[in-house]
This record gives sequence, structure tokens and C-alpha cells, in this order.
Amino acid sequence: MDIVAAVEGSTAAIGYGLAAIGPGIGVGLVFAAYIQSTARQPESSRMTLPYVWIGFAVIEALALLGIAFGFIWQGNL
Amino acid sequence: MDIVAAVEGSTAAIGYGLAAIGPGIGVGLVFAAYIQSTARQPESSRMTLPYVWIGFAVIEALALLGIAFGFIWQGNL
Amino acid sequence: MDIVAAVEGSTAAIGYGLAAIGPGIGVGLVFAAYIQSTARQPESSRMTLPYVWIGFAVIEALALLGIAFGFIWQGNL
Repeated sequence: MDIVAAVEGSTAAIGYGLAAIGPGIGVGLVFAAYIQSTARQPESSRMTLPYVWIGFAVIEALALLGIAFGFIWQGNL
Repeated sequence: MDIVAAVEGSTAAIGYGLAAIGPGIGVGLVFAAYIQSTARQPESSRMTLPYVWIGFAVIEALALLGIAFGFIWQGNL
Repeated sequence: MDIVAAVEGSTAAIGYGLAAIGPGIGVGLVFAAYIQSTARQPESSRMTLPYVWIGFAVIEALALLGIAFGFIWQGNL
């Protein structure tokens, strides 16, 4: 019995993969809402644009935290 | 029996990844709703903005709790 | 009992597979919003097009990061 588990790699890859599901959908929702809003009310595009970037940033941060803590929990940092 | 487990890392990474799915979608829904509402009724933007931040905070807290309890359940804290 | 686990491969493949779920839906939402908006308000197509590409880029990046970190966490890089 030489090899018990032939699957190799780190759980951090699975963790990041899972952490990217939600932000992938969430950022898509934000941009989709902005595209539809701007098409209907073009005069509102300047008013809602800051919230596109804020929403994008706070949602994307969830995925990027998955990268950071993947390294941390792997024990590399 | 040389190699027992070739997969390394912590289940905390998987836990955080799962915990980030819902908040990623949820925060996206909140910001998407605010962008569309503000575009249609610009005079409502000041009235609904506090609820964007409250909603964002309580949803994002779910993902950040995943980080905190990842460390706790790993036994590091 | 020579072989205990016959499943082989890397967790990076699972990680990327998971990381492709969310961006797959998210980019679809962005393009769907642009198609519907442009069909209703054709004069808005030039105004909203930049946000289609920005949204596409930032969402697709989440999936491509899954490829990059799959290699990194596997220990090849």
C-alpha cells in the first residue's frame, strides 16, 4: 500500500473556486442593472455610477479574500 | 505507507469559499436594486441609501464570519 | 489491498470548475442586459457598451484567476 490518496493539490484551490461563484454572479447583477438603468434613463448614469464601483469593489473583495486566506490557511504565510 | 494524504490545506478555505457564495450574490442584488431604483426615481436616492449600507453590512458580515470561524475551528485561536 | 484510492488528479481542476460557475452566469447577465437595453433603446447602445466590456473583463478575471492560482497552489510555480 504505497499510495493512499492520488489526488493532490491544495484545498485553497477549491476554496477560491467556491468563493468566486457568488462574486461572479453579484458583479454581473450590478453591471446588468447599470446597463439597463442607463439605457432607460440616460440622465441617471452619472448619479448611479459611483454605486457601480462601490458595489463592484465590495463584492469582488469577497473573491480576493478567498485568495488571501487560501495562502494563509495553507500555512505559507 | 509512504503518502497518506497528498491534498494539503485546511477545510477553513473550503468553508470560507462556501460562505462567500451567498453574500456575493446578495450584495449584488442590493446594489442592483439601488441602481435601478435611483435611475427610475432619482428623488428616492437619499431615502433608500441607508438601507443599501445596512443591507451591505449585514450580508457582508456573513462572509467575514466565515473567516473568523475558519480560524477558530482550525484551532489556531 | 494494493490500491486504496484510484481517483487521481489535482484539486486545481475542481477549483477552476467551481470558479467558472459564477462568472459564467455573471457575464451572461451583463450581455443579456445589454441586448435587452439596446433592443428597447437603440440610441443608448453606444453609451452602455463600455460598461459591457468593463463588466465582462472584471467578471471573467475571476475565472481566469482560478487557472492561475490552480498552478500556484499545486506547487508547480
